[in-house]
Amino acid sequence: MLKRYKNTSMIDKKQLALDLNLIREKSPLVHNITNYVVMNNTANALLAIGASPVMAHAVEEVTDMVAIASVLVINMGTLSEKWVDAMLLAGKAAVEKGIPVVFDPVGVGATPYRNQVAALIIKQCKPSIIRGNASEIMALAKENVSTKGVDSTASSNAALEGAKRLAQETDAVVVISGEEDFITDGKTVYSVKNGSPLMPKVTGMGCTATAMVGAFAAVNKDMLVAATYAMTTMGVAGELAAQQAKGPGTMQLHFIDALYNLTAETLVENAKIG
Amino acid sequence: MLKRYKNTSMIDKKQLALDLNLIREKSPLVHNITNYVVMNNTANALLAIGASPVMAHAVEEVTDMVAIASVLVINMGTLSEKWVDAMLLAGKAAVEKGIPVVFDPVGVGATPYRNQVAALIIKQCKPSIIRGNASEIMALAKENVSTKGVDSTASSNAALEGAKRLAQETDAVVVISGEEDFITDGKTVYSVKNGSPLMPKVTGMGCTATAMVGAFAAVNKDMLVAATYAMTTMGVAGELAAQQAKGPGTMQLHFIDALYNLTAETLVENAKIG
Amino acid sequence: MLKRYKNTSMIDKKQLALDLNLIREKSPLVHNITNYVVMNNTANALLAIGASPVMAHAVEEVTDMVAIASVLVINMGTLSEKWVDAMLLAGKAAVEKGIPVVFDPVGVGATPYRNQVAALIIKQCKPSIIRGNASEIMALAKENVSTKGVDSTASSNAALEGAKRLAQETDAVVVISGEEDFITDGKTVYSVKNGSPLMPKVTGMGCTATAMVGAFAAVNKDMLVAATYAMTTMGVAGELAAQQAKGPGTMQLHFIDALYNLTAETLVENAKIG
Repeated sequence: MLKRYKNTSMIDKKQLALDLNLIREKSPLVHNITNYVVMNNTANALLAIGASPVMAHAVEEVTDMVAIASVLVINMGTLSEKWVDAMLLAGKAAVEKGIPVVFDPVGVGATPYRNQVAALIIKQCKPSIIRGNASEIMALAKENVSTKGVDSTASSNAALEGAKRLAQETDAVVVISGEEDFITDGKTVYSVKNGSPLMPKVTGMGCTATAMVGAFAAVNKDMLVAATYAMTTMGVAGELAAQQAKGPGTMQLHFIDALYNLTAETLVENAKIG
Repeated sequence: MLKRYKNTSMIDKKQLALDLNLIREKSPLVHNITNYVVMNNTANALLAIGASPVMAHAVEEVTDMVAIASVLVINMGTLSEKWVDAMLLAGKAAVEKGIPVVFDPVGVGATPYRNQVAALIIKQCKPSIIRGNASEIMALAKENVSTKGVDSTASSNAALEGAKRLAQETDAVVVISGEEDFITDGKTVYSVKNGSPLMPKVTGMGCTATAMVGAFAAVNKDMLVAATYAMTTMGVAGELAAQQAKGPGTMQLHFIDALYNLTAETLVENAKIG
Repeated sequence: MLKRYKNTSMIDKKQLALDLNLIREKSPLVHNITNYVVMNNTANALLAIGASPVMAHAVEEVTDMVAIASVLVINMGTLSEKWVDAMLLAGKAAVEKGIPVVFDPVGVGATPYRNQVAALIIKQCKPSIIRGNASEIMALAKENVSTKGVDSTASSNAALEGAKRLAQETDAVVVISGEEDFITDGKTVYSVKNGSPLMPKVTGMGCTATAMVGAFAAVNKDMLVAATYAMTTMGVAGELAAQQAKGPGTMQLHFIDALYNLTAETLVENAKIG
């Protein structure tokens, strides 16, 4: 069984640099069961940071794929029955094997079906980390929130109390991404102030963040720290990309380039972790 | 029940500007049941113009998603049984709720299955707007046309009579996109002369046009006008993007940037609506 | 029945130029049953080189689509039961019709399910060409190889003996892509030394290569030559794109532009076929 996080979590910029380099050195296999919209971006972002992505969703093979993976990322952006079966099967195999499960509850709160599936995944796959936008985290935490599709209508700050409670209830680290990201295990709260306003204008940037959390969780057993480093990496790459971009179209590509060209030095220099 | 269009349809450049701004202000939820090839582009284009895209295709949730959506876009590019079930279910819910259904009959005419599914969707989902290339519209109108896969082999002009008849038979506004776009309710015909030859070289540009039609149909109840404005917006953004592009690859990204950066003034100035 | 290859295969740069131009002139319909991650890239690459891509996977229509296609490309990147049914159905229809089947055994060796499906496809769809990375080809040839997901962990050279044996056993031309590509019918071996180290950093570049093989196989009945020309075209476009790219993100788009702008002269000048 995975030790999810230590109470001694320390955010340490040297460790941030080491973990980025560790991803590139070990190239951990990140098994994604994710949505159709973002598969390409997710795979490219994972390749760019140095991880090895694989997408597989057949019930016939997900447990075998989990067996060779370092982390499982479950994203419920485009659900259907068979995919949910595969998510649950893979999630349970990951728990049994003791690798982290990272869960992205895309659009939870928008429909009863999404609420049911999210509850099932949390119960059966015991995610080590849950990452969503403020609306999604509030919906999971059963805070009052009006959801509109998959985009957030709430602020990260408003969702923080819900995130803490959700973390305590689920024993998962909870990440709220937004203008300022919050990462909490229910007690400690870290915040990341990196990023660019162009990021939410690119579809699936949140899903990419979840996959990035997966990559960092594959090389650092402290889930609170891993999630914080991943969000920092996303934010710094986003800032660098935004300097080149003329809109969300070019942003998408410069973001992948920025991840690929990101040195540990640049990452550490620009990190705004609080 | 939605009043589909008024006989008094007026193409008015001030209204074009207002509708663009209205999309950005209201950020209408556009529910897409679309094909795997274009989901990412479609979502990015809708975000770039200011709408809020959602992709959901599970029979378990499509009616709930329609309930919070402003418009439903059905695109049959990559069909299969379950997806067709979801399309019909969602389409009927949209009709009942009185929101527009925009239909893209991708590749109709290429296989009997596509013809059957298109007929079912038109019958059961009563689309307010149907958008296709000339071959597809001719196939729907049962004109003689040899179809080759999903690309058009016919010209828009050749398809216009079929489009008019199809509009009359189905009570839908019909859009033929091509070098010159035609938009008709069976009586009035508008044409849009904006665009770039690079656009058909980017896969899914037609599907993006259909989604854009959805965004405009969400803010203007006159379907003939909404479709005309959407095609104009596509064409103008395409022209601006082509000035930056060195081929269909960079075109794709500059197009998203152009949509994002498009001001109402630029749109109106460059609009070539006849 | 298709004559798969002649013993008189000749690599001829004039023919390379002619075949590129033939794709643009005839715009052959390439029917792809491929994975979710790469559909968009595949379609764009085929459009850029001048072919006409179609994606269709419903058992209700794949045989009808094969009936109007010039070549069938089967890629098993993201498998599931229904898709496998469609692949087998389409493959058998293609064999019966006598058009080439090009097979990409993505991730074979990673899970037993992938091994079973690959074996089924090879048996029932009798591919004219099989293209994979070194790990995949070694897995198919039952060489000892440790596979990690869908990325190659072996070198092309190491896989060459396996490729030859696989070609002899299956009567298919086998392509190993890597830093140096090898193309063999079990007797003759061609090699292509074009390409860029950025190519494997873009997800689905291998899948794009397979689709490109499909486009060339649609205009040249000599499968060994067609596959060699396709890999050359990929490599030359990759080199040109890499000169513009600042990372794998921009690489992706410049690659599509390079394919689109590639003249027969540039192709021939830069080709490094051995």
